[in-house]
Amino acid sequence: MRILITNDDGIHAPGLKSIASVAAEFGEVIIVAPDRERSACAHAMTMREPLRVNEVKYLAARVKAFEVNGLPVDCVNVGLTIGWPDGCDLVLSGINNGPNLGFDVTYSGTVAGAMEGTINGIRSIAISMAILNSSETINYDLGADWLRENWDDLTHAELPPLVFLNVNVPNHPAKGTRYVGMGQRVYKDRVEMREDPWGRPYYWQGGVAVLDGAAPETDIHAVKEGYAAVTPVSLDWTDHAVLKRLQKTA
Amino acid sequence: MRILITNDDGIHAPGLKSIASVAAEFGEVIIVAPDRERSACAHAMTMREPLRVNEVKYLAARVKAFEVNGLPVDCVNVGLTIGWPDGCDLVLSGINNGPNLGFDVTYSGTVAGAMEGTINGIRSIAISMAILNSSETINYDLGADWLRENWDDLTHAELPPLVFLNVNVPNHPAKGTRYVGMGQRVYKDRVEMREDPWGRPYYWQGGVAVLDGAAPETDIHAVKEGYAAVTPVSLDWTDHAVLKRLQKTA
Repeated sequence: MRILITNDDGIHAPGLKSIASVAAEFGEVIIVAPDRERSACAHAMTMREPLRVNEVKYLAARVKAFEVNGLPVDCVNVGLTIGWPDGCDLVLSGINNGPNLGFDVTYSGTVAGAMEGTINGIRSIAISMAILNSSETINYDLGADWLRENWDDLTHAELPPLVFLNVNVPNHPAKGTRYVGMGQRVYKDRVEMREDPWGRPYYWQGGVAVLDGAAPETDIHAVKEGYAAVTPVSLDWTDHAVLKRLQKTA
Repeated sequence: MRILITNDDGIHAPGLKSIASVAAEFGEVIIVAPDRERSACAHAMTMREPLRVNEVKYLAARVKAFEVNGLPVDCVNVGLTIGWPDGCDLVLSGINNGPNLGFDVTYSGTVAGAMEGTINGIRSIAISMAILNSSETINYDLGADWLRENWDDLTHAELPPLVFLNVNVPNHPAKGTRYVGMGQRVYKDRVEMREDPWGRPYYWQGGVAVLDGAAPETDIHAVKEGYAAVTPVSLDWTDHAVLKRLQKTA
């Protein structure tokens, strides 16, 4: 099995080492990852600047690794071009240093890596450590162990061409695994104004995720209940029910 | 009607002036746009750097305009904070200087502006000029005219909370308007290798969009046939059919 691995936390992130060590047990691995942290870069693509690629030494002799001055989307496309020109069987993205639940999926560079693999026609999986409090210390071994145990299910699940899997693993031994939908993770106080030493305003964007009110059968709910959450994410974002209604009334 | 306008082509883009001049006929407009072009930035969010906001003079005395050193998502959130702290009725994003058809939707900063408006609970619309050849000169008046004529339909269409409208207007008088789904716009030759004057490789990402094989009832098909395409895009990306199957077999 030919495997391409990327992430959005950068080539030196511990989650990348974890995912690569598990993948190397099951196939031939090439890592192509950003040269630095690129969190919340979503499905952005570098089009206006040339991309540079450097081979780097990595933990395992059997794993080839490259850093790119770009984003996860860039890494997948460059990785397929230089690493797997004859094709690749699996794109893995992660393990992200935090959850990608609900609307996080729309901002996430980790998820975007899997999205780009899918657009390239390759089975793709994004994996994130679902800490629910940013002060928690992440134990990536839990994500690695979960991935190893569920490898067969993930790589054999019957998926249509435009669907990939988004996985959130709890930061404690999971009670089990639940297949669930994307929840609605709402942030409050999205923008905070401050003043610089010269009295001029500047703004921080971020906000606190409000996880409450998570409906059952969602990723947020599953993780709150202590389960790993696996969500099949589609690249057809059409709301077909609304479309039918609009076509009728047009 | 309180209207927030953003784009990904930057505060000086002609498409922004077009959309703002139409919107100002229907309501009170505040523009908050990136200080420079940020194409293909997707739903990325600036989290690691502070955002600065400058008020700028704009074409119409009645329109307030601000530039932000950030991305469309940043502009929407900062814009709602400083421009419409008591709420806003409509977020418009565009008019983009090129199509956002099929998978373009996943890379587009224009679409991301509408996505962020939707996450904030506001009716949102992204509009793009669907030239099918990058050498065409864009006539933004066509987009402005189309928007004016269809304003009532767009702002009154019955949409559930997580759905926004993605509009592609042809670069010639449209034969009409079709409500359609997201097509599959495939690119070929995604990554091109070149050598710098010192013989070191670098890579350009881009590729040529292959529009052929567009299924009927898709945005790509509608635009190729000469129609404006309106697509209801959902922020629930769960593939519910696949989810049900996975839950049964798990």
